[in-house]
Amino acid sequence: MGPATTLEEVAAHAGVSRQTVSNALNAPEKLRPETLRHVRTVIEELGYRPDTKARGLRTRSSGLIGYCLVPQQPGSVNVFLDQFLEALTAEVERSGRHILLFTAEPGGDGLKVYADLLASRAVDGFVLSETQVDDPRHEWLATRGVPFVSFGRTWTGSQPGHCVDVDGASGIAEVVRHLASHGHKRIGFLGSHQQTPVTDDRIRGWRETCNEAGLEVSDRLLACTTAKGERGKDLAAKLLDLPDPPTALVAANDALALGAYAELAARDLRPGAEIAVTGFDDSPSAAVVTPSLTSVRQPVAEIASRVVELLDVAQSPATTELFTPELIVRESSAELNLPGP
Amino acid sequence: MGPATTLEEVAAHAGVSRQTVSNALNAPEKLRPETLRHVRTVIEELGYRPDTKARGLRTRSSGLIGYCLVPQQPGSVNVFLDQFLEALTAEVERSGRHILLFTAEPGGDGLKVYADLLASRAVDGFVLSETQVDDPRHEWLATRGVPFVSFGRTWTGSQPGHCVDVDGASGIAEVVRHLASHGHKRIGFLGSHQQTPVTDDRIRGWRETCNEAGLEVSDRLLACTTAKGERGKDLAAKLLDLPDPPTALVAANDALALGAYAELAARDLRPGAEIAVTGFDDSPSAAVVTPSLTSVRQPVAEIASRVVELLDVAQSPATTELFTPELIVRESSAELNLPGP
Repeated sequence: MGPATTLEEVAAHAGVSRQTVSNALNAPEKLRPETLRHVRTVIEELGYRPDTKARGLRTRSSGLIGYCLVPQQPGSVNVFLDQFLEALTAEVERSGRHILLFTAEPGGDGLKVYADLLASRAVDGFVLSETQVDDPRHEWLATRGVPFVSFGRTWTGSQPGHCVDVDGASGIAEVVRHLASHGHKRIGFLGSHQQTPVTDDRIRGWRETCNEAGLEVSDRLLACTTAKGERGKDLAAKLLDLPDPPTALVAANDALALGAYAELAARDLRPGAEIAVTGFDDSPSAAVVTPSLTSVRQPVAEIASRVVELLDVAQSPATTELFTPELIVRESSAELNLPGP
Repeated sequence: MGPATTLEEVAAHAGVSRQTVSNALNAPEKLRPETLRHVRTVIEELGYRPDTKARGLRTRSSGLIGYCLVPQQPGSVNVFLDQFLEALTAEVERSGRHILLFTAEPGGDGLKVYADLLASRAVDGFVLSETQVDDPRHEWLATRGVPFVSFGRTWTGSQPGHCVDVDGASGIAEVVRHLASHGHKRIGFLGSHQQTPVTDDRIRGWRETCNEAGLEVSDRLLACTTAKGERGKDLAAKLLDLPDPPTALVAANDALALGAYAELAARDLRPGAEIAVTGFDDSPSAAVVTPSLTSVRQPVAEIASRVVELLDVAQSPATTELFTPELIVRESSAELNLPGP
């Protein structure tokens, strides 16, 4: 291993002063965005890593950003959040910081953990994910002047602090337009837990776009999971039992779409041949199942990058930014074309 | 929120001295295992959280354990490691510590990051995962007296430090015994990257158990991915093209098994009806694909718990402990019974 890169070397390579490099690390809001981006690029190219301990002493910061892992159901995983965490870890390292992982219960009970981390100065701020309706964390942190950025909306009137989220409605709108262009006239929707905002948002994308395309929009084409433990297979069965069943099933997530695959197999219908099926999340399963599943990919790297940018200007007026996800067309919808009317 | 639990309250509830509670947190190797377990249970029951900053000053420790997220291929994930990280985060919190996440290149190039974290006293030790053959980290850390535990073997003669791993050979042995009990006589194996130790270990489990059960063991029943970009689908095709193809395909991971599903679909063969298929890892896909996939589950919570126990006695003589994974029988193998000879 060669000697470590110094702050002076970064300044020389970037053609800026030591103070500008220092600001890029400790007070990025003082720099113009172009300058900040330039200095960060040089920091990365040279592999410069500030001495976080020394920085801690100078600026009384820990160099750590707290991130809560909400315990999943046993056997369950949220692959998308795992990808986000990986991207986030790499992003905060660009300014010599790291992620401190912790666990906390959702809701008010978990706030004690946030309080403890702040009291012990273990972290300088937080990145929030797995937001809930009326999530208490945003207001609690904002009131205390703690820097944070939320990945995910609270879906209430007020959204304290910066927020980055995925525009689920526009993702589903793209799916519906894709299916309409293949001649589908009756497009069913499989949703989870109706009356949660994320599902409602995706249902809205389905309704509005079917409407725009002059397709049927009615509740008989909408099936959502209920407390009764219904799953994607049951929802698909409901819609397939209609006298004039839909020719395409748009699911609010990949797990529901794969549940629909099971029901289609039981009826000897092949996804992508007799009926189109689409998912949402572009989970690893989507690419490997047979037939491969058309899905919607969330731009995880871009989201993580923007979250960290906003964290550095956490005290500026709150913004909410939505990213448009990307339609990934695969076998479950690609080849199926229906004749015109 | 009520007032925080104090160390004195923990001592009173546990019926031990303040010093014993303190040792449980800062010098667990001084306590008998039963005592340590008892005090930790009380710490958890009362929700006691030591002030990590104060502890840092007293013991010059950071209260943080470093964990490296090796960047995955874009779009790729290792769900099993994500589950491990979640369990690990919860485990280290039982003694008031947290995980510090960082990224580093595999191999010698990444050691600079470990050196920086130690130099800045950002972490007290490391949990290693994604080990490689001739992984340089173990020797490097051991030489410097840095506490660490490895999840995964280095597969070389020497294994410095404590190591916990999954016994892949015994997992595959269980799969083969399950298939043999259903009357299968020719069991093919689909492996990834032959001549990596993890695959070799699983192949050994297949060979030895087929041998024990009096079944054919020959290289013509073994298909492994090569540098040519072959995938599960191609491997399955090779074995199905044999004049007397196997009646069961044992895959070294779930992705290969799902690739085999695609080849079977192309040949109008149903997994679990005309031919048995099994995977390894029990990824989320395994339970949701049609038909659901028999797989092998690694005991992630137990592994994380043991890793943290060993971290607290990192200076004791090195041990390597193997956990036996669990066979999860699903539709792809459950119902298919072959007639006797």
